[in-house]
Amino acid sequence: MRFLATILLLLTIGLVHETAASEKKAVQPAPNGISIPAGYKDWRVIAPAHRTDNNTLRVILGNDIAVEAARSGKTNPWPEGAILGKIVWKQKNDENWAAAHVPAALAHAEFMIKDSKKYAGTGGWGYARWLGMDQKPYGKDANFAQECVGCHTPVKSMDYVFTRPAPIP
Amino acid sequence: MRFLATILLLLTIGLVHETAASEKKAVQPAPNGISIPAGYKDWRVIAPAHRTDNNTLRVILGNDIAVEAARSGKTNPWPEGAILGKIVWKQKNDENWAAAHVPAALAHAEFMIKDSKKYAGTGGWGYARWLGMDQKPYGKDANFAQECVGCHTPVKSMDYVFTRPAPIP
Repeated sequence: MRFLATILLLLTIGLVHETAASEKKAVQPAPNGISIPAGYKDWRVIAPAHRTDNNTLRVILGNDIAVEAARSGKTNPWPEGAILGKIVWKQKNDENWAAAHVPAALAHAEFMIKDSKKYAGTGGWGYARWLGMDQKPYGKDANFAQECVGCHTPVKSMDYVFTRPAPIP
Repeated sequence: MRFLATILLLLTIGLVHETAASEKKAVQPAPNGISIPAGYKDWRVIAPAHRTDNNTLRVILGNDIAVEAARSGKTNPWPEGAILGKIVWKQKNDENWAAAHVPAALAHAEFMIKDSKKYAGTGGWGYARWLGMDQKPYGKDANFAQECVGCHTPVKSMDYVFTRPAPIP
């Protein structure tokens, strides 16, 4: 009986641990209902960027559809199903190479999801952003996406995307 | 016979095309004998960087061993078999967002390969660099790697690696 009790105890501990881990991973959807794309941190690179107006470093990643489009030059328009992910960090000077900017704290991860029908109201792209390491959804309500559209409208002729794929041999 | 001739012609064309494609892909090894790591442009991101002393943007990628080490904080020392790849572009100002630096021409792709025994003479890391989109090996002879070691020696206490993995949730 003591053996059985030990087994049950270990199983219970395992279950509790697993539940805790899942809870830690649960990211709330954005106010427009978009869920954070699964596995984005394993996506491939499309380009880096550096902003001098807000002192941030960025990496633009893409899901497989987006990366294939980027590498074959078919990005105007981007294909249906393409997702672009941008990871943004505050910059700091490297402690061992003062002239280099390197990532400090994570600012946010943000996404553009191409679905011309579903997101017809926002130029064919669904927008979402999650703030910081605890990935708090950005925006009070679904209207936050109009802010995204406003900022991206100057590049409407590039299918609303600023990023140009970086040349990689 | 005409049918067979057509088939043979098509097969020949196919073969010639394939040979041309392979020749295009063949990248010469570095002067220290290191071959360019296969599939590096599909590797995952460890961090971006920006250098103000030579106006370049960089993305540091890693093979699976390196990325697992980066994500679990086991980078001092980096594990045997880890490969870090750095892709470097000249910067330009984004044509639609003047305060942003974005990639212009590719400068080079360079690598650090961890093998304490094989590369004991250069601090346990094998170094190699390929220039531009035609991926010309850098260095006149195998001694070029001493230049790499010299530059990386200030971070000897970090296993000769400047890059600190960027936080990604």
